[in-house]
Formats: sequence, C-alpha cells, structure tokens
Amino acid sequence: MSVSLVRKLVVTTREQLRTQISSARKQGKSIALVPTMGALHEGHLSLVRAAQRQCDLVVVTIFVNPTQFGPGEDFDRYPRTFEADVTLLQREGVDLIFAPNRDEMYSAQHQTHVEVEELTNSLEGAVRPGHFRGVTTIVLKLLNLAQPDVAIFGQKDFQQAAVIQRMVRDLDVPVQISVQPTVRETDGLAMSSRNRYLSGDERNRALGLSRALRAARQAVANGERSADALTAVMRQSLAQSGIEKIDYAVICEPETLQPIEMLVQPAVALIAAHVGATRLIDNEILDPAVKETSKNTTAGAARQGT
Amino acid sequence: MSVSLVRKLVVTTREQLRTQISSARKQGKSIALVPTMGALHEGHLSLVRAAQRQCDLVVVTIFVNPTQFGPGEDFDRYPRTFEADVTLLQREGVDLIFAPNRDEMYSAQHQTHVEVEELTNSLEGAVRPGHFRGVTTIVLKLLNLAQPDVAIFGQKDFQQAAVIQRMVRDLDVPVQISVQPTVRETDGLAMSSRNRYLSGDERNRALGLSRALRAARQAVANGERSADALTAVMRQSLAQSGIEKIDYAVICEPETLQPIEMLVQPAVALIAAHVGATRLIDNEILDPAVKETSKNTTAGAARQGT
Repeated sequence: MSVSLVRKLVVTTREQLRTQISSARKQGKSIALVPTMGALHEGHLSLVRAAQRQCDLVVVTIFVNPTQFGPGEDFDRYPRTFEADVTLLQREGVDLIFAPNRDEMYSAQHQTHVEVEELTNSLEGAVRPGHFRGVTTIVLKLLNLAQPDVAIFGQKDFQQAAVIQRMVRDLDVPVQISVQPTVRETDGLAMSSRNRYLSGDERNRALGLSRALRAARQAVANGERSADALTAVMRQSLAQSGIEKIDYAVICEPETLQPIEMLVQPAVALIAAHVGATRLIDNEILDPAVKETSKNTTAGAARQGT
Repeated sequence: MSVSLVRKLVVTTREQLRTQISSARKQGKSIALVPTMGALHEGHLSLVRAAQRQCDLVVVTIFVNPTQFGPGEDFDRYPRTFEADVTLLQREGVDLIFAPNRDEMYSAQHQTHVEVEELTNSLEGAVRPGHFRGVTTIVLKLLNLAQPDVAIFGQKDFQQAAVIQRMVRDLDVPVQISVQPTVRETDGLAMSSRNRYLSGDERNRALGLSRALRAARQAVANGERSADALTAVMRQSLAQSGIEKIDYAVICEPETLQPIEMLVQPAVALIAAHVGATRLIDNEILDPAVKETSKNTTAGAARQGT
C-alpha cells in the first residue's frame, strides 16, 4: 500500500469531502455512505459490499463520535485501529474514507441537535440517555456532507436503524436507508467492535445472547406466539449461559419498537446484557410464518451476510 | 390568471415538489427557496426579488407551521390570504409555490425535531418556548425537500435568521443563507403580516418601535457607546409613543445575540413590545463607525429594500 494511494483514499476535512463528492456527482456517479466508528470487522465490510452493490462510489466514514457516549461509558477506551481499518477498506476497493477529528465535526460554537422522541425512550435510549441524540445529530451531519443516494446501517444496532429511518422520514432527508443483516461468528456471536473487550471465558458466555435469540426462534417455529412465553424462553436461556445482568430481553413491533403481546406479524426480539464489564446487544426477527428452523439458523443466516 | 397556469405554479405534495426540483436540477438551474407563512406583503416580495437576483428558479413555500405557535398564540387567527398570495407571486414571476397542508408536512408518526440550544434561550425564545424548535424543524424539512442553493430570510426576524444560520453551520446543511433588509412602510413601520391586526390608533402607536430604534441610531451617531444608555434611550422613546408592555429592548452581539456593554463593533438593537393585543418585533443594526444619520434613515433604508 503506497502512501500516495492512502493520501487520495483518506480525507480529513469537510471541505475535501465536499470537493470529492461534488466531483463524483459531476461524473454522474451514485453515492453510498457507510458511517462507522472504525475498529472495523467483517460486519462493517459486509456493509461496504452492500454499498458497492447499490452505488458507484462508496464513502466510508470513521469517526468515534463523542456525543453518543454517556459520562460513564467507554468513549476513552473504545478501540481505535485506524491504520488497520484503512488497509481493510482499501482491500475492499472503497473509494473514499472520511476520517475527521472532533474539532472538524463540532466547532466550539456547536449547539444544535436532532432528537427523535418516542422511539428513543425505550431499550438503548432508556439505558443510555442522550445516546440517540448524539447518533441522529452526527448521522444527519454526515448525510448533509456526503449527500449520498443510499446510507447503509447494520441490523445489529436495530433500534439505531429504526431511529435513523424515522429521522429521515420525519425530516424529509433525501436518502434511502438500507439495513443489512447482522454478521455473526461461525458459533453465532454477533460481530461487534466491543467483542475485543471480552476475555476467553467472557467470549464463551457472550454466546448466550445469540443462543437465547435462537431459542426464541425455535419456540416460534414450534408454534409459540405469546410474547411473555418467548421472553421467558430468552431469559431462561440467558441464565443457563451464565448471563445474569440483563438490561432487556423483549419482543417488539419492528418499526415502533413497542412491546407486543402476541406474535401475529414479524416482530423483533432484542437483548441487551452485560458479560463482565462489557455490555452487548443482539436481535433477531421472529417471523410467525416460518414453521421450521434448524439449531444453526442464526449462525447460518450470519454466514450469508459475510 | 388562467386556471392551468395556477395548476402548474402551485404544488401541494412533497412528491410534486421533488419532481419539479429534480427536473430543474437536470436543466442545470440553480434554486432559491423563500419560506413564508403566506399573508404576503412587500417584505416577502423583496425576498422573492432577492431570490430572483441570486438563482435561476425561485420556490416560495406557503405554510402556516403549527409547531412554531405556542398554546396561547395566534395560530388560529393568523391571516390566511392564499389566493391573493398566489396572485402576488405570479405577478413577480415566481416559478413554483409549495403550499402543503398540515398532514403533508407532519405525519401522525412524526416525532423528530431540531433544536438550536444557547441562541434560542433569550429574546423570542425566552418569551415563546418551543417556537424556534418549530421553526428549525420545518425549515430543515423545507431545505431537504427543495434542496436549494440559497434560502432567503428577512432581517425583520433577526433571531430567527441567526438561529437558522447556526443550524445550517452546525448540521452542515449544504445551503447558503441570505438575509435581506427589513422592508418598512414610508413612515418607518416594519412590514409584518401581523400589522393587519392593528386598529388605526394601534397602527400609530406601533410606530413607536421603529422610532425607538431610530433614536438609538441617532444616539450612536452622536457618540453614545454605552449599551445601558442606548437601552434607556429606546425605553424612553417607547414610553413616549405610549408603548408600555415591552418584552425586551436590548443591544446584542449580532451572531451570538449575547447582550453587550459597550458598542465597539456593529451590534443589533432588538425590540419586542405589545400594542393592544398585538405583539410586534423590530430591530436595527447599530454601527459605531457611522458618524451621522438623518432622522429618516430607518424609513430611508426601508425604501431601498422595497
């Protein structure tokens, strides 16, 4: 990888980004945006590949956004692997990486935020006050800067994707939001930059989240329709995996994220739980129309995504 | 004015607007947006003319935005003069009028808003809680729909223009904000849709606002630099005009709207006061570099704007 290639690939100022975007637009290229906080893994690369399938030019942003971390959260120790990230993205044939610093994105006078209300009151929003305000504000800034046709997000952060879709609809942002399937390790663990925090033993226990979701899917395939019963299945499975500190384990309507009572339409099962000092989230769509499933479905669906 | 012409000129859905904007873009036209709440007067028309000087295609929006009115405010009785507005705009050669209804702009699921913080705590923001949140949210929606190169606002709503400029900078919205001088009646009264509320006697007393601002300008020209002294000049002038209920009469730094103590750089004098049941606002730039002024400057500058 030559230095000159890296120089062309990575821009750090909004002005450089705008110039490159404007030049691509003049060439009639369609643009896809993949916002990330770096510490890239196979999940992010699957978003990049989805972007490449949908548009001519792919812009990946790398910015650990301080405003979406709460006071006690892991902003300082969040993994930063910039050089490895650039190498991975270059190997994927990404066209442009936007990696601004904090001052470039938030001036000293910055005082504007975007807030999605109802959708952010529950789940992650309840546990992490201010988190989604930080997410929606930075995502809208990135959308305004890159002006993409499509922006790609992972289903792994299910509520985040729902909140961003709501923001885009409510504010008439001219972009299509594309949500891509969660990518999993072969044993089912949802890929996450925070998996790096896990010790060997914790890594084993962390499997409990995908295992609980798989148990819920199996129960649905066996005919269970009660959300209470499915929640009990998930909680029992989590306990069996040695996961005791559960922030939530719920079945919700996928667009509004309101809890449901009976599974009539496809719903989403969402779990947030702590494994040691690490907080993990995962989710699965539960479709009452699916009659049969194998024990390996979650991991199998994951491999399709990679 | 033929019906077919009106049909082409006025669109009411976002989809129709997007189609027309997209078509104009394909023709390489630059676009200016003039957001209004209708009840158009010469002040609005001066914004339209400024838009025409700056861009190829001028889009005027007419929407009495409910979310920027507080519970006790005049949303229900705000003047609505749609047919006259369309006639005026057609006469000016406006290309496109976007006049959506409430449901078109706010779905039942709408739950997103944009908030500019510090700038909206004082002046209008202090007296009208929630007002600027409504303004910034609807303006961002209109900017996203029309995607203009330039959006035009009047200096009459000085704080509104400052708040929108702050929002555009903070969120990296790709638009230039152009602020145009206040247009005044020949006797100095700042044009406002709310002037229609005034009785004959109130119309006379309403002159007190521009008279007070003119008195402050004259004091500056005579060498006064103390903000306290200039505020006293304005308050005394307002009292002499029979205006007793003053929400504020202050001298502020024009970008941050923080009160100043001494006039060193250009500042803005802002007044909000009640005349009968009608609340009026007005403002003037005070420039310490201007040594002389005539008693008619305010009205004189106004005529240039028309």
